[in-house]
Order: sequence, then structure tokens, then C-alpha cells
Amino acid sequence: MKAVVYKGPYEIAVEDVPEPKIEQPLDAIIRITTANICGSDLHPYEGRAPLDAGMVLGHENMGIVEEVGSGVNRVKRGDRVSVPFNIACGSCRNCNAGWTSACLRANPTGRPTAGYGYPMMGPYWGGQAEYLRVPWADFNLLELPAGTEHENDFTMLSDIFPTGYHATELAELGPGDTVAIFGAGPVGLMAAHSAALRGASQIFVVDKEPDRLALAERFGATAVNFTDADPTEVIIDATDGFGVDCGVEAVGYQAHDPTGQEHPQMVLDKLVEVVRATGRLGIVGVYNPQDPGAATEEAQQGRYAFTYGQVFDKGISMGQGQCPVKRYNRQLRDLIIRGRAAPSIIVSHELPLDQAPEAYDQFDKRVDGWTKVLLHPAA
Amino acid sequence: MKAVVYKGPYEIAVEDVPEPKIEQPLDAIIRITTANICGSDLHPYEGRAPLDAGMVLGHENMGIVEEVGSGVNRVKRGDRVSVPFNIACGSCRNCNAGWTSACLRANPTGRPTAGYGYPMMGPYWGGQAEYLRVPWADFNLLELPAGTEHENDFTMLSDIFPTGYHATELAELGPGDTVAIFGAGPVGLMAAHSAALRGASQIFVVDKEPDRLALAERFGATAVNFTDADPTEVIIDATDGFGVDCGVEAVGYQAHDPTGQEHPQMVLDKLVEVVRATGRLGIVGVYNPQDPGAATEEAQQGRYAFTYGQVFDKGISMGQGQCPVKRYNRQLRDLIIRGRAAPSIIVSHELPLDQAPEAYDQFDKRVDGWTKVLLHPAA
Amino acid sequence: MKAVVYKGPYEIAVEDVPEPKIEQPLDAIIRITTANICGSDLHPYEGRAPLDAGMVLGHENMGIVEEVGSGVNRVKRGDRVSVPFNIACGSCRNCNAGWTSACLRANPTGRPTAGYGYPMMGPYWGGQAEYLRVPWADFNLLELPAGTEHENDFTMLSDIFPTGYHATELAELGPGDTVAIFGAGPVGLMAAHSAALRGASQIFVVDKEPDRLALAERFGATAVNFTDADPTEVIIDATDGFGVDCGVEAVGYQAHDPTGQEHPQMVLDKLVEVVRATGRLGIVGVYNPQDPGAATEEAQQGRYAFTYGQVFDKGISMGQGQCPVKRYNRQLRDLIIRGRAAPSIIVSHELPLDQAPEAYDQFDKRVDGWTKVLLHPAA
Amino acid sequence: MKAVVYKGPYEIAVEDVPEPKIEQPLDAIIRITTANICGSDLHPYEGRAPLDAGMVLGHENMGIVEEVGSGVNRVKRGDRVSVPFNIACGSCRNCNAGWTSACLRANPTGRPTAGYGYPMMGPYWGGQAEYLRVPWADFNLLELPAGTEHENDFTMLSDIFPTGYHATELAELGPGDTVAIFGAGPVGLMAAHSAALRGASQIFVVDKEPDRLALAERFGATAVNFTDADPTEVIIDATDGFGVDCGVEAVGYQAHDPTGQEHPQMVLDKLVEVVRATGRLGIVGVYNPQDPGAATEEAQQGRYAFTYGQVFDKGISMGQGQCPVKRYNRQLRDLIIRGRAAPSIIVSHELPLDQAPEAYDQFDKRVDGWTKVLLHPAA
Repeated sequence: MKAVVYKGPYEIAVEDVPEPKIEQPLDAIIRITTANICGSDLHPYEGRAPLDAGMVLGHENMGIVEEVGSGVNRVKRGDRVSVPFNIACGSCRNCNAGWTSACLRANPTGRPTAGYGYPMMGPYWGGQAEYLRVPWADFNLLELPAGTEHENDFTMLSDIFPTGYHATELAELGPGDTVAIFGAGPVGLMAAHSAALRGASQIFVVDKEPDRLALAERFGATAVNFTDADPTEVIIDATDGFGVDCGVEAVGYQAHDPTGQEHPQMVLDKLVEVVRATGRLGIVGVYNPQDPGAATEEAQQGRYAFTYGQVFDKGISMGQGQCPVKRYNRQLRDLIIRGRAAPSIIVSHELPLDQAPEAYDQFDKRVDGWTKVLLHPAA
Repeated sequence: MKAVVYKGPYEIAVEDVPEPKIEQPLDAIIRITTANICGSDLHPYEGRAPLDAGMVLGHENMGIVEEVGSGVNRVKRGDRVSVPFNIACGSCRNCNAGWTSACLRANPTGRPTAGYGYPMMGPYWGGQAEYLRVPWADFNLLELPAGTEHENDFTMLSDIFPTGYHATELAELGPGDTVAIFGAGPVGLMAAHSAALRGASQIFVVDKEPDRLALAERFGATAVNFTDADPTEVIIDATDGFGVDCGVEAVGYQAHDPTGQEHPQMVLDKLVEVVRATGRLGIVGVYNPQDPGAATEEAQQGRYAFTYGQVFDKGISMGQGQCPVKRYNRQLRDLIIRGRAAPSIIVSHELPLDQAPEAYDQFDKRVDGWTKVLLHPAA
Repeated sequence: MKAVVYKGPYEIAVEDVPEPKIEQPLDAIIRITTANICGSDLHPYEGRAPLDAGMVLGHENMGIVEEVGSGVNRVKRGDRVSVPFNIACGSCRNCNAGWTSACLRANPTGRPTAGYGYPMMGPYWGGQAEYLRVPWADFNLLELPAGTEHENDFTMLSDIFPTGYHATELAELGPGDTVAIFGAGPVGLMAAHSAALRGASQIFVVDKEPDRLALAERFGATAVNFTDADPTEVIIDATDGFGVDCGVEAVGYQAHDPTGQEHPQMVLDKLVEVVRATGRLGIVGVYNPQDPGAATEEAQQGRYAFTYGQVFDKGISMGQGQCPVKRYNRQLRDLIIRGRAAPSIIVSHELPLDQAPEAYDQFDKRVDGWTKVLLHPAA
Repeated sequence: MKAVVYKGPYEIAVEDVPEPKIEQPLDAIIRITTANICGSDLHPYEGRAPLDAGMVLGHENMGIVEEVGSGVNRVKRGDRVSVPFNIACGSCRNCNAGWTSACLRANPTGRPTAGYGYPMMGPYWGGQAEYLRVPWADFNLLELPAGTEHENDFTMLSDIFPTGYHATELAELGPGDTVAIFGAGPVGLMAAHSAALRGASQIFVVDKEPDRLALAERFGATAVNFTDADPTEVIIDATDGFGVDCGVEAVGYQAHDPTGQEHPQMVLDKLVEVVRATGRLGIVGVYNPQDPGAATEEAQQGRYAFTYGQVFDKGISMGQGQCPVKRYNRQLRDLIIRGRAAPSIIVSHELPLDQAPEAYDQFDKRVDGWTKVLLHPAA
């Protein structure tokens, strides 16, 4: 089959690789209809996170069940499904508690998290390909209505829509609350959409890209372009001097200032400024335990010297980490089906698999208008 | 009246000062029966937190209502009461939400927190004195049974018992959970007591002082002396390699290694090591937004370079800050009355007001056996 | 001043009565700008709930602070405020826990609930009058932006908007959930509006009045007219045979069938049918501990023989009772201010105080189009 | 193998039946070491709930894994395990949400609940036998430490310890709360033990059997013998006239007065009396949707005319239904392992399988001292 294969930093290729097969009785093989490129795919692409050459990329996947193992008793050939990016066994202690993002058994290295086509998430090939093998299929797969309707909405269910939603959950956003979201990339936009669905009274989205901020406004947010004004001033002024009730970090350690200089703690510092005393932060932009490519020795060790003294003083709570997709994807699917959610407005490109290399290149260069790329292997 | 007056770093005196009077219709005057010395009283004592000379110290207070203002309609002369260390107006948005620790109106400086006899908490005199003025008395005071029974238990309700409990609440400790508490000072010990009351299955308390660890054991905890062994190893081994479900920080920025060197991020780093993926941290040891006396420029700015990348990677949540005492003090009082809680076992000294200077000196020097000092002004 | 005075069943009059005065240091006097007639005002009007002749009616009040007592320190003359229908002391155990609907001190009879102009809620006059006395004013009053904007939206904050919201809270309605609301009176409509704000994926509203169902549709609901079809069938069919995740009761013990026969347990029975196993019910339609006017001896004793065996078998949870308005009114106010909520679309009539008798008569007869009546004393 | 077989009302026999076999790839076969007799086994025994002749009884089971199907990848031959009484598929919507008590797929009749050897819970044989077949074994089984230690404690994990705990969870019992538990049978006693573990300040247990009340006292409860005094009076007096914070129903529809007359709503009525306004009820004593054997036509239809008007008036919440064992059994196991919980003190008899008929007879007759019977098939 054809697949997007990682060769090395800044080098991917669409190649013929062996088709996946049922390896375990609980496996399913999915014929991919849509696989998205994720912002976090750029971490290995840029060589910032180590990945073995030969790995098939892609953790945002959906498609049609092609075949199931002998122990699979719920999903069946022909079902249309969304594949959460987390691989979870369904029976360990963390899975039992709903933390499929921290499955204790799926990753053979023992690291408590597993996924497809991604550094340190286990040996599982990704879904930017014609077919994908899914372990523990009954537990992991989410059923979708048959047909092709809402394809571009449903494809957001594998990662970024739940991840954006998770940020608002970590931030304990409730009806009537105000929220500041830093980062108008796909995850930040999904956080804005989620905040509106949860009844936020006002949603500030902070970024510097006008096209992304325009999308934020389509989700009902107030755009704050930080190249025009200090977001802290704007937000504090708009909230009677108190700051917002909660904040979302959707940028991560590669935050950089207008000159392009990386300041990994910059966004955390701003969030601490704009969130009110007793406020809550939901942080889904990635911070790493080690980062050999970081500018300072501290950051290389995963030490980020943000203003934690302020966090304590203001009594702010902080929730962070990978999203357990299964906790949210059914509800978000139902909101799409019933016409209340429409995440697909962020899609900028739909491409055949062959154009993946160009798409990675453009997306990595943050070329204007490349917000979210979907690959359709059958196209 | 006699009162413990702050004169300057390492200098306090028991002096005659004017008795407090009803200043507002909602005030009450309390005749103090017991006022404790708190570990955080040492911050101004050591000159680490700036306090005006002349301030009366003491925020852990209880006593008998002596007089009430014209608008007070619940408490009345003769009532025995506990005085939460937070001063709260009872009608601002934060008070309405149960965050009396972040009252928006009580502190004339506008800082969203107020208290007695403490730096940056407003002009309110403390209760290491014969009398104390309490604003918004109906809202702030907790009624106690008449008489003198349980005096030394009830006196823990003004601060450290709720504060220790708050740590377990921030850490979302539930029945069956395991917990690691760093610091066996009074707050850490109260956190251990609270953890047992909440049904923890195992409670590790980490410290280096044998007398304090012995008290922890009396609350049902497993003592871990970090001068004997690496607490990370001990705790990870005892939890099948997974680490504890939650952790409590009861040390603060003045954490120091066995050589006496201060490492403000040291305890946070250890907690991140011993808490399992998806675990929760409750942090009540104090971290400051500014700390001119800190060793590094970062720490002076309240930037603590702990291993936040690990926090993100493990999906740990962090709750921190001052305790809103009113949220817990009634329930804890009832546990004392019905014989289920007995925090007074940590009391090491009961002294008259006159001996406050010596008590501060001994307590500050961490002299062996000076765990918790109560002052009885009438003694 | 002029006020709407209860004389006896089906008899009210607009009369001159003495103006209220500051009686306690924490009182405020409000000049009423808008006072609504509530469906529950019909209980005394119909003689179903005993009320002393001479009582001034009205518990849905808003206006301008005219005068405050000596102990009031937050609100001040000239402030525009909403008055929650609950009267709460702000310092008893229930108020501390956020249950202002069950204040232990405000009602001199000792009944744990108090309010304005209503049977068994204490001696407090209502606000269908030029002025109203509000006890514990700092605690009870909600500040509104100065001016007259949003008057008809804000006037819903004293009771029905929070009450409808409370129903969805009791039903634990979360984003993506489906909900069935029985009753499209003002409270049911506010529950529908609240369900949409909280992210419900589908909202069924069941009633028989086309005009009210049309309003439900304006809030995004699916109208189910039970004179056209069995709502159980409609709802079960529309939810793949499973039933809705949660249900709201907004009718109460006076539920009657199309022939006009009263069946107090009828709506509860239907809710139990349409809610799925493990679902949740929020019940804000009133059921009484005694009801001398009921048709059966059981109902007279407040015994309602609904299908509780089904409730147990399906593992449904039930939350019920009066709304603690203060728990929600600030957030709902902010949603109005920021343009996300617009409860005023249900207003059918705005009348001067003099026309109250006619309004009660028409509203009581459920005359078509009399959905929600506002009285403006100054009009 | 030998098994306890249901023949008809009041007639069971220990017979030779075919050994269970792996039928599906996710099955496991358990060699039973302990199987308890449950109070609810008496419903079919008494003919009150219809069961097919030939069914093997028993839903409180533990033992050693003898064999696993080809799709089982976690548990393995030789593992010591507890078998929750719920059978759950692990991948339906209710299982995903933690409601294993309402699995949508395990019961072939479509009823959303399944279990072993019990009326209306599916075709699954029970475990009062030498062997038991467990479907979806990886999901359903709880691992226990190897060996035989704590056998009589661990055997409570399959049903009654989690069920008693669930009652306290439904009642939202928090540290410092007071609770009244009606019924000192095994489930009521486990609720008392759970309440103590969760930090209740006072636990009232109401029953009429002195031996059971004595066990309640061993769990730290205050015994209330309702043949000595009206429990309402006792409890209201002991709580300053307010009533308890929460209540637990551990009796069910077969509640009877001292004369032996059945009053299915009697215990609910008492709970409504003793629980304070804003209190919470957890109801795990069984109420049925139909009960042909009931005394009144209403009760036959599952209509229980308790004082619901009081429930509404006091704003009490009600949670009810079967326990999802998996939600609690791991934590309770850990409390046993670490010596904090000891449910086995309620065991009155340990018998070989052969003596099951006599044990059912004595237990059904409520013969003094027959509190909890364990069957050991290998004994």
C-alpha cells in the first residue's frame, strides 16, 4: 500500500509498504478515508523529537473497518469509525479510570502512553496510508453514521477537537465564564469552539496570524492580535480589571516572540498574568521532559522557569497533558450529527496522499492559509 | 492590652498597646483564649517578608466574643469561636464562590486576600494579644461548643488543620488512594491526619526530623526519613513501581538540602518523581511572586525552574495556594467534637503571652521538639 | 405606596399601603422597576396555598437601591440590582454551602426557606409594589449595569432563569447530552434556553400549547406536542431507542391530562419512561408536602405514587427542589451582558401595576398568549 | 462439577452439572474458591422473582483463573481474581462511562444490565459451583494478590462492599458528614464501614436485630434499635434538631413493620424524615418495576407512594440503583491489602457447597446469627 514514510528530519516520502495485517485477536484493519496532518507531526519532521526512519506517520485517522480479529465482537467490517490517537488496552487501571491517554499496557517500552506513528508512543504505524492496524479495536474505535456526510467534521474527532475540548475541561470552564486562549492554531481554534459549546460568556483568542484569528471569530471569539497590542492589557481591560476566569495554552514549548526567538515559558507567563485569582489553566500545548534542541540548559532538562510564584499567590490551578480522546469523542460526534458543532471550517486543504511531502513543507513553514490539511488516500 | 508586637527582623516584644474597638457595624471583638505561632510567622520574623514595625502578630486565633457591632445578628457576646485566618467580606464574587482566601474587598490595597497580622494581608492586627477585632464577624466566625473542652484541637481550625486538609482537596485525594506528603511540620502533619480521615490507603510522610516523623506515624502514616534513603526509591518501590496517586507539598520555597543550602524547586521536583502519571499535586507550602532574599535572580522573580516538562508528560494536575478556611472548618470541627479527629497531638508547648519572644526564637531555630506552640494570653 | 395586595382566593387589589422602611442595619429599600408575575403566584391566587389577606405579592423583583441600613457596606443608593426570590442570611450553614434556598435563619417560623410575598416563606412583603425591603442586602442583591438596557432580560434573573438553569444542573446536563423538558411554561422555556447554553445536543420540549412550543423552538429546541403524538414514542424513536440522557420536570403537581383531570404523578411517570438507564432528572415543578386540595388522600399527604420501581431499576438519579438563585445569577447576568443569553423573548405583556388584577385573571385562565407578564410600577 | 441449582421456590439442590467451557475468545473459566450467598438470592428463592429451574445460583464470586480464551491478553491462568456481579462488555456507551451496572450489550434480552445466576440478568450461570465462566474476562476481573490471605475480605469485593460503598457515593457522603443507614444486613453494614472510611463524623445504623447492630458498632457506628425508640426522634435529637446530612437505604421493598406486615415505602418515609433539608439519599435496597407478589395494586406496578412532596420541599437529592462494582473494587481492595478495611468481620458461616440448601433455609428464615454465609466449593 502507499504510505507517508518518515526518512529523517525534513524528509518524508510516499512509498509502497506492506499492508498491515491482523496480528492479535482484538485487532482491526481500517481502510483510511481521511488522515490529517497534525501540528505535533512537525516535532519529528523538524527533528526535534527522535523518530526511526521507516515509520509511517499520522495519528489523526478515520475510515472504514476492513477486517477484524477473532476476538472483536462489537465493530464489524463496513463500519465507519473514528480512530482516537491514543492506543489503549481498555482494562488497565488508567483505562478503567478513563485515562486512555496513559494506558499502562499498550506501549511495549513501558511508557504510560501509546499512539500511532509518533515518537516514543510505541511501534505502531500511523494512518497517513491506505490502511491502519488498530489494536483493542472494540475499545478504541468510535462508530460514526454510515456514508460520507460530515467527513471533514468527524475527522477532527481523532485528536484536535477532543484535545481542544480537553483544554477547556482542564480549565474547568463553566457556563458564563470568560476564557483566554493563547494560540489560534487548529487546537486553539477547537478550544474556542469548545468554549462556546460549553457556554463561555466571552472567549479571547490570542495569536498574530490574521487568517487564524478570523477563524476564531467565526467560532464566536474575540480576536486579540498580539502584534497590535499587549494581550494582557486588552484582556484585563475587557474584564473590569479582574482578568479571565480561565485560560488555555495551545502553543507549547516552541512559543516564540515576534522576532522568532523561542521563549518556552512565554505563554505560561502571559496566561498567569491574564487569569484572575482562583482561576484555572488548561495546558495542552506540549512541554517536554527533555528537549535536546532547546536554547537553555534548563529547558533541555524540561525545566521551564515560568512565574510559578504568581500561580501560587493567585491560587490558580493548572491541568495539563495529553487528551484522553475517548472521554469526549462520543459527545462531540453527537454535537456534529445534530448540527451544533462544525469544526471543519478550519480545513484549508484536502489532498491526495501523494502531496503529503509538499503539505508538510508548507505547513511547517507556516505558509499563510495552511491551517489544517486533510489527506484522502483514496482521492 | 498586652500583645506580641513586631519590631523588626528577629525582634519582637510583648508590649502594651491600645485595645481594639468596634470600628464598623459588622465587627466583633474577641477575647483571645488561644493564639498559635505559625510557621509562616517566621517569614516576617526572619525579615524575608516585609512587615511594618508596630504590627501585632498572629493569625491562628480563637476565643470568646466580647462585644459585637450593631449590624452583627448571628454571633453574640459570650460565644466561643474560631477565627479563620482569612478575612472575607462574605458578599464579593470570590466569597460567594467559597474562595474566602481571595476576598476582593477586605484588603484596602486591592490585593485579593486579607488576614491578621501578616505582610501584605491588610492593616489588620493579629491575635497574639488579649483581644482581636474581627471584621464581618457573622460571616467569618465559626461557633464552637461552650466551655473549654477540645481547646487545643479547636485552635487548629483557624489555619493549619484546614490548610492541611486543603492540600488533600487540591490533590483530589479519594478513598483508597496513596499519597506522599513532603514536610512533617505542622501543616504536613495536618495533611497526613486529613488524608487518613479521607480514606487514603497509604500515606507517606517525608522529612528528616525523627520527632516529627514519629508524630506522622501516630496519624497512621508511613515515615520516610530522607537522610536515610532516597524517598523516590522508597515510594516507587512501595507502590509497585507506579508511584503514588497524589502528592502534597508542605515545605515551600525555603526547602533546603541536608547541607542547609536552599533549593526552592527541590520538593516540587521530588513530588513530580514520586507521583504517578495522571496523578494530582496539592501545594500549600508557600511560593512567592517576588522574593528579594532568594539565591538566584530567577527565584527573586518568583520563577521556579522545576521539572514542568515532566508534569506535562505525566499529565499531572497541580492545585495550589492559600486555604479558604471556611470551606472546611465546620466539618473538621464536627470530626473533633465526635472524636474522629484529634489534631492537638502535635502541640509541643503551651505558653503565656510573655514568653512569645523566646518561643519565636526556639521555633525559628527549629530546636528539637518545638513543633507547635500555643499562646494563652490569660495564662 | 401602591402595591398588589392579596385579599383572598381569586381576589387581589392594587391598594395604597405603607412604604417599607429600614428595619435592620443590613436592610435595603429597593425602588422596583420591574416585578414579574410567576406561575407559582397562582398557587395562593387559586387558594391552593394559604396566604394571609393583606400580604403584598411578588417574588420576581428588580430595581434601584433607594436606601441602605447602617451595616450595609457593598451596595449603595442608586445601584441597579436584581433581587433573588430567596431571602438568605449569608452566614448559616446552608448559606455557607451555597444553599440560599434553604437558609436556616431568615424565616421566623424556623422553616428552612424564606422569600417575598409567598405562602410559608415568612412575613416578607413582595415586590409587586413601588418599593421593597430586602434583608441582608449585601449578601442578597446582585449588581446590574447602570441604565435601563436589558431590563426585560435581567428581570428573569430573580427566579425563572436561574430556576430553569437549576433544573439542568440537577439533571447534570453536560455538553453533547440530550434532554427532555416537560412543560413549556416560563420555567420550562428557561430550562430549554439553559440547556442550549450548556451544550445540549438535542432538547425536546413537551407541551400542548403551540405558542409556547414556538418559543421553545426559538431557543433551539425540538417541539413535541403531546396532543399530536405520545411524547415517549417520539423521544425514544429520536434517540435510537435509548431515551434521553436527562429530563426536566417543569410542570409540578397540577399536571393534568387533555381532559383537564389532575394527575400529579403523570409527568414524573413520563420522564421515567423517556430517560435512559443511568439518566438524571431535574425536578423544579413544585410538589408539596401537604396539599389539602388534592384529589386523593395520598396526594393530600404529599405521597405521589409514581413509578419509583422503574427509577431504581434504571438507576436514574433525581434532584429536586427550590433553586438557590445566587448560585447562578451572576453567570447568567454575564451571558446576558455579553449577548449570549436573551431570556426576554418569552415576555408577552408589560403592564402598569394597576392592571395586575386583570393580568392575574388572564394568566390564571391560561389565556392564549399570556406567557410572561412584567409589571412596571413606574409606568 | 457440583453446583447449587435452582429447582423452584424454596427448593435448591447441589447437583452435578456440566463444567463451563470457553465459549467466546474473551471468556475465562474461574475455579471458585469462595462464593457468598447474597440477600438478593432470596428474591428468587422465595419465588418473588421468577427464575428458570436449572439455573446455577450465585453472583458473589472469587477464585483462580483456570483457563482463558484466545483473545484474553491481561489475566492468565493461575491469577487470583474477584468477579464483579455485573457482567459488562467494556466497550458500549454505558461501560465507557463507568456504568458497568447498565451494560447495553451483555444481556441478550436487551435489558441494560447483566449478571450471574440471577433473574432477568441474562443466561449466565452463577458461581455457587466449582467453576464459573466469565465473559469479557480482561475487562471484568479484578486481580488479587496471590495466595489465600484476606480471602474472606476479598470475597466482599464482588458485590456487597462496593454496593455499600456505592450507597455512600450516591448519598455524596463527605468527610465530616453525618449519615443514617437503615438496615444492618450485610449491605447496610458495608455502607457503615464505607461511611467510616470516607470520614463520616457520625454514622447511625437503624435495625432491630441486636447481633447485626453489634457488628455496626464494630465499624464505628451508633446503633439505633427501632424496637426501643423511634429512630427519627433519636437521630433528630442527636443532630441538634437538623437531621443527618445523608441517608442510606439498605432494606428495599420488603421492609416490614415489627408485626411482619410489609410496607414497601416505610423506610423511604423514615429517611425523608431524618435527612436534613438539602440532604442526599443513596438507595441500594431493591425496588422493583413490577412485583406481582406485592400487597397493593400500586406496589405491584412498582409505584411506591412515599412522601415525595417532602423530598421536593426539603430539596433532597435521591440516587439509586445497582452498583457498578468496577468503579470501586480496586480502591476497596487496596484498603484491605493495606489494612485499612476489614469487611470480613460480618462473616458468620463458612460452609462447603453441600450445605448450601441448609444455609439458604436458615438465612431466609433470618435465623439469629446467620449474617453472611460463604461457600467454599473445595472445602
